[in-house]
Amino acid sequence: MKRGFDKPEFQMRVSRAQVEMNYHKLDAILLTTEQEIRYFTGFLTQFLESPCRPWFLVVPATRDPIAVIPSIGEVLMANTWIDDIRTWRAPNLTDDGVSLLAETLRGIGSNIGIPSGIQSQLRMPLTDFARLNAELESPIGSDAGIIQKLRLIKSDAEISKIQTACDIAGRAFARVPEIAKAGTPLEQVFRNFQRLCLDEGADRVPYLAGAAAPNGYQDVISPADARPLTPGDVLMLDTGLVFDGYFCDYDRNFAVGSVPTEVDAAHAKLIEATQAAFDVARPGNTAADLFYAMEKIVSDGSGGSEAGRYGHGLGMNLTEWPSLIPTDQTPLTSGMVLTLEPGIEVFPGTMLVAEENIVIRKDGAEWLSAPATVKMPRLEG
Amino acid sequence: MKRGFDKPEFQMRVSRAQVEMNYHKLDAILLTTEQEIRYFTGFLTQFLESPCRPWFLVVPATRDPIAVIPSIGEVLMANTWIDDIRTWRAPNLTDDGVSLLAETLRGIGSNIGIPSGIQSQLRMPLTDFARLNAELESPIGSDAGIIQKLRLIKSDAEISKIQTACDIAGRAFARVPEIAKAGTPLEQVFRNFQRLCLDEGADRVPYLAGAAAPNGYQDVISPADARPLTPGDVLMLDTGLVFDGYFCDYDRNFAVGSVPTEVDAAHAKLIEATQAAFDVARPGNTAADLFYAMEKIVSDGSGGSEAGRYGHGLGMNLTEWPSLIPTDQTPLTSGMVLTLEPGIEVFPGTMLVAEENIVIRKDGAEWLSAPATVKMPRLEG
Repeated sequence: MKRGFDKPEFQMRVSRAQVEMNYHKLDAILLTTEQEIRYFTGFLTQFLESPCRPWFLVVPATRDPIAVIPSIGEVLMANTWIDDIRTWRAPNLTDDGVSLLAETLRGIGSNIGIPSGIQSQLRMPLTDFARLNAELESPIGSDAGIIQKLRLIKSDAEISKIQTACDIAGRAFARVPEIAKAGTPLEQVFRNFQRLCLDEGADRVPYLAGAAAPNGYQDVISPADARPLTPGDVLMLDTGLVFDGYFCDYDRNFAVGSVPTEVDAAHAKLIEATQAAFDVARPGNTAADLFYAMEKIVSDGSGGSEAGRYGHGLGMNLTEWPSLIPTDQTPLTSGMVLTLEPGIEVFPGTMLVAEENIVIRKDGAEWLSAPATVKMPRLEG
Repeated sequence: MKRGFDKPEFQMRVSRAQVEMNYHKLDAILLTTEQEIRYFTGFLTQFLESPCRPWFLVVPATRDPIAVIPSIGEVLMANTWIDDIRTWRAPNLTDDGVSLLAETLRGIGSNIGIPSGIQSQLRMPLTDFARLNAELESPIGSDAGIIQKLRLIKSDAEISKIQTACDIAGRAFARVPEIAKAGTPLEQVFRNFQRLCLDEGADRVPYLAGAAAPNGYQDVISPADARPLTPGDVLMLDTGLVFDGYFCDYDRNFAVGSVPTEVDAAHAKLIEATQAAFDVARPGNTAADLFYAMEKIVSDGSGGSEAGRYGHGLGMNLTEWPSLIPTDQTPLTSGMVLTLEPGIEVFPGTMLVAEENIVIRKDGAEWLSAPATVKMPRLEG
């Protein structure tokens, strides 16, 4: 499958941002994270895993973006559609790009916004941010939610990358019986599942969560330990693998040998819940509507799991806006990519979590992950 | 190898921080990143890959740390030595932990510091940070560099985790001839090298950079493409794999078939450079001294590569302080883990980069990576 995006895709993103900037009377938006910078430039590298250098992109309201970056990135940035690239030799202990960025911003205007709302992060030191503000006519304010609004809706080209990531994960999940059975330590399952993901075409596997415990698990964020899978366990694997810079994020549950009827019944309810959400996942409904559609089935409306939400947006980040929670009234819109992620209590202290990935289209949802079967697959017990 | 750390290790870290806090008249330090929180708690999870929820740790000057975290993390945090755990159900669109954190901080004092200097990041939305400050008696200031100062020096327990990561990478590098030869597309080499790392015991491979091009490469941060390895190429793989939350970070170069004498000579100079830095890597010298030791060999003192530095600290982050650059006068101290990473021009427009990992001890340095051979290993051409 083709890598990257065509230039018109980036120009369309910039142009959408500029329409919003003009509406909100912003002269430019300043971006600091890998995903934000890549969204407008196509600059794809793992190099920002290193926190040592700040990277900046300035998206002005009336012209093409300007990259203000460490010189080590110049060659790669020059391969993108960005023409205006300004560099400094980083790290610089006394001025790590701050004066170059300030000069760039002053040349554009005085109303500068930066993503500041929920799920946003500032990828530069606070001291430098304060110094930057001190060098500007007026301090940097909010981006008025523009970046969130844009990234909420994926283009078809973005969706097909997420689809590819989902397909890769699907093939890896289908091969779990090759690597997991009673006696296999969980940490070995984790390691070998990542190998399956790579084998099936993942570029990277930045996220793998999971658990294995009798009759369901207690939490879903612990690292793997050396405990061997044991008959009666439920094994859950939840992967955020990446293809060409885009994540999938879904899980699968497996029974090790035989499990009590209650466990199978709980799993069936989860599948019913994701299907119920899928059925109402269309423009006109909201993120909260999806939460309630699942909640009604998994806990009869009694309040939801401690995960606090039953799904979220998905794209260049493992998790994006919106959140499938009672208070999120974000209207579902064509092009939104979401996870459906209900949890259910099996016995006191044990739970199961299901997760699927969908995309909202004009007339309803489409599955990006091929939905889990009602009956949990069995591993050799 | 044993996972995690014993409780006295965390208590020692807290106690060192408290000595510094008392000296700098801080009542507490607020931490927001995965690495900072883990440093004092042992809380190890990939869950913070999701940017959707902020996590906080408060380290007071006179008592044990307080975790202020989303309720989804409560079970796992309760498995650490931390007793005081305060949770909220996140994400919360109107108050995502801000008032709970403000209340916690107000209960401790009014002089709160946060890491703000070079390489630090704030892992919470800017709007929330502003609201937090507004709810406190006085705004949060700098942590006076305390966290950086502590994390610069690794304990023996930390060093042995980095050593394990280095050993894993060493075994994977030794197997590169199994997966790479003329005709193999670079992206397949990347994928299969990650599989080798997992096979040899890596928990995860969050970072893999590299390149392959005739007579050396042009940059070291590009993602892999589909171009097949070609006789005369130099293949470079640079891995940041993780064992139990700690990175290694070093590379190896391979010649595909035969390469011109100049390429082998450049590689030999790089190895000479890392050895020269190793020889002066001891307490009493500085980060800058290591830079100059390498610079003298690779470019006769003419100014260094565009990478801007010849190495850096290493630990829970792929890159940490100090930087091996002319301006970094950080004194080398026993327990400091560093990369030595010189670059050299081969022909105009092509370069080679070598990288090794070392630890500073009382009487000199020790290799953590088994140093590369002077002669580049050959791959089938």
